[in-house]
Amino acid sequence: MPRQWYNLVADLPHPMLPPLGPDGKPVNPEMLSKVFPMNLIEQEVSSKRWIDIPEEILEILYRWRPTPLKRAVYLEKFLNTPAHIYYKDESVSPAGSHKPNTAVPQAWYNKKFGIKKIVTETGAGQWGSAMAFACNLVGLECKVYMVRISFDQKPFRKTMMQIWGAKCIASPSNETNAGREILKRMPDTPGSLGIAISEAVEEAVMDSTGSSRYALGSVLNHVLLHQTIIGLEAKKQLKLFNEKNPDIVIGCVGGGSNFAGIAFPFVYDKINGSNINIIPVEPKACPSITRGSFAYDFGDTAGMTPLLPMFTLGHNFIPKPIHAGGLRYHGMAPLVSQAVKEGLMEPKAYDQLKCYEAALTWARTEGTICAPETSHAIACVIDEALKAKNEAKEKTILFNYSGHGLLDLKGYENYLSGNLTEYSLPENDLKESLESIKNFPKI
Amino acid sequence: MPRQWYNLVADLPHPMLPPLGPDGKPVNPEMLSKVFPMNLIEQEVSSKRWIDIPEEILEILYRWRPTPLKRAVYLEKFLNTPAHIYYKDESVSPAGSHKPNTAVPQAWYNKKFGIKKIVTETGAGQWGSAMAFACNLVGLECKVYMVRISFDQKPFRKTMMQIWGAKCIASPSNETNAGREILKRMPDTPGSLGIAISEAVEEAVMDSTGSSRYALGSVLNHVLLHQTIIGLEAKKQLKLFNEKNPDIVIGCVGGGSNFAGIAFPFVYDKINGSNINIIPVEPKACPSITRGSFAYDFGDTAGMTPLLPMFTLGHNFIPKPIHAGGLRYHGMAPLVSQAVKEGLMEPKAYDQLKCYEAALTWARTEGTICAPETSHAIACVIDEALKAKNEAKEKTILFNYSGHGLLDLKGYENYLSGNLTEYSLPENDLKESLESIKNFPKI
Repeated sequence: MPRQWYNLVADLPHPMLPPLGPDGKPVNPEMLSKVFPMNLIEQEVSSKRWIDIPEEILEILYRWRPTPLKRAVYLEKFLNTPAHIYYKDESVSPAGSHKPNTAVPQAWYNKKFGIKKIVTETGAGQWGSAMAFACNLVGLECKVYMVRISFDQKPFRKTMMQIWGAKCIASPSNETNAGREILKRMPDTPGSLGIAISEAVEEAVMDSTGSSRYALGSVLNHVLLHQTIIGLEAKKQLKLFNEKNPDIVIGCVGGGSNFAGIAFPFVYDKINGSNINIIPVEPKACPSITRGSFAYDFGDTAGMTPLLPMFTLGHNFIPKPIHAGGLRYHGMAPLVSQAVKEGLMEPKAYDQLKCYEAALTWARTEGTICAPETSHAIACVIDEALKAKNEAKEKTILFNYSGHGLLDLKGYENYLSGNLTEYSLPENDLKESLESIKNFPKI
Repeated sequence: MPRQWYNLVADLPHPMLPPLGPDGKPVNPEMLSKVFPMNLIEQEVSSKRWIDIPEEILEILYRWRPTPLKRAVYLEKFLNTPAHIYYKDESVSPAGSHKPNTAVPQAWYNKKFGIKKIVTETGAGQWGSAMAFACNLVGLECKVYMVRISFDQKPFRKTMMQIWGAKCIASPSNETNAGREILKRMPDTPGSLGIAISEAVEEAVMDSTGSSRYALGSVLNHVLLHQTIIGLEAKKQLKLFNEKNPDIVIGCVGGGSNFAGIAFPFVYDKINGSNINIIPVEPKACPSITRGSFAYDFGDTAGMTPLLPMFTLGHNFIPKPIHAGGLRYHGMAPLVSQAVKEGLMEPKAYDQLKCYEAALTWARTEGTICAPETSHAIACVIDEALKAKNEAKEKTILFNYSGHGLLDLKGYENYLSGNLTEYSLPENDLKESLESIKNFPKI
């Protein structure tokens, strides 16, 4: 197992642009110290290429890591492709996805810094359950603000968090000023990720003992850093298969963390001259990197975060409620955004119908049921494998099987009963949504 | 991986009693030939000790087997016990439990025999999804009659079956005489396993092309035979850990198949002089082997099967709707029953409250969420590990982690919100239920 994380910041051809504060000036680390513990802020702003993974974190990750690298021989056979398709199976973690790869280090660094309690938010529930899992192992209190509509529709994610000892409440709630304010104005709101972030940050920052902090599950540099263990392991494992370095690396993208995890170690190779096609796959309903602007924008809907340099659809953008809840984010991690901007990646967008079709092909060949998010990667893998067949080339394809779909079967049910339709973000909606950032500092 | 299944029939101190037909005479294999294919009937009545696993079946099982044997070091540490606790993780199969171990061979033998379609029933949905999974891999049509109340309450199990291409309908249905008859009398019935079995058997037997057969997920000899791969693998794996043969082997029991799977290879050792404590654990709400009679009784509620020699609560017994749906069976596999009768096992019964408490301890130490059925094994493991601590003995405990609980979180929710109570089958209810078999042939 790798003993260091890889930090792409060290190798990007151009330096990263800084996040900006409300005054338009670069944010300095101290300004974030009430939100995150200083040891994580140091990682966030680090430009060191390799960062040691503390032994105690490795010991926890050993519980399910290294995750298996598997070859999808049954899918290859079904497609009759000369391509070799490999996937990194991140669904084997107890929380069912790649999320614990960063939840564990985040919990550990908070604990190390003397923090007693982590407050976070969750949309569909993947991140909240991973954080609950991690806090239980490390010995931290954990509170999760869960978007009300998901809280009501997916009671089982809440149950998972409770099993691991976390407190999960519906947002907006009466426990914060932000929540009370919203409830006064819109008592029947289904909530949103933006609102939930506001509540979580407020509770963490307002803790008068100073022993609470906030945690985020994607987008930020240190989160992507922790996920690189996926790609680093995959590299070693491909060698055990006597396989060449991949020609194509694929992952689905919402905030960018699972994709960065598998891709960044190969972006390093690409920067150093390897010929690799690196493909982030996003939904056509929420096409930030294929159709958004590379611009400064808020990371959240409510505008509480610094301005981040990234591909964005505008922070007011509310994606259609597609089933891949983890990909419904208006922006893209600044690190992924800049790598795309520098031509290191070739993003693609897929419609949810095609993705469920791919998920079904996967289940009926490889046998397992993938998360709706993961189905975006699989749809692209199938296209690339068929292209390799047309070109009669023995390409090596690697993708990240980011999570299982056992808590997301509702989406499959809708697909199987013919209730899903194709949908691509209309041009006018995009234009309108981008209006919200027109007065922000330009890149 | 083992290349033969182990058949306990060959080694029982006394020969098995035969199943009896409606006339009170032993059933002969031909009488079952419209229900099961002859190659499986041959296994059902075989007394050969070792039965070869066909190469093609092994190739399918390789997809997820051998399953990991893991040591529960975090639970050991939490309990501060000198015991070594090992578990066989059967939750890693695509269907999430041990059920595919027999679903795959059953589908394969049916296909081999020229059968085109398997009809089966399912209660909570575990068996139905395993059979759907297996039929998809082998290339058979699959139809599952699912007890209506589960069909309505657990739509996601149905979705899983559909993902793997099976047809799943609520029982009672209008598709069989048995179903129509019941619907006429009780249009609002929630259904029962007994009714669903009747419908599935009827559809299989009435197929005028003769190309349909029925399949059962537990109880029968050939089903238990297929599951012995669990214990055979565990034996080899314990050696890789440089661990001695276990002092205690534990599994939960409903029909008996997952327990038999892990236990029978060690029953062989016990018959040959090893000192092993082999413990089947059942719910106090459905205590067939701890409080039932060893007697001839029907395998189903409707009385369509031959009379089987087994521990039973009476075929009319309707267990309280505890969350461990897989353990709600009035009888016990004849092979397990006879082994108990011969003193080779020491059955125990646990209350569901204590089992959920154990499941929570497990989730908060080992990190994973177990099926409600599996929690019965864990509750007993914890008791035995604490006993080893009191005795200051370094005992080796092995148990079967038969499935994950990701599709059964409702039970956890009820437990966490304090809605579950202790319940033990009242003596009068047992007496009344056993009335139904008082005129059957005696053992």
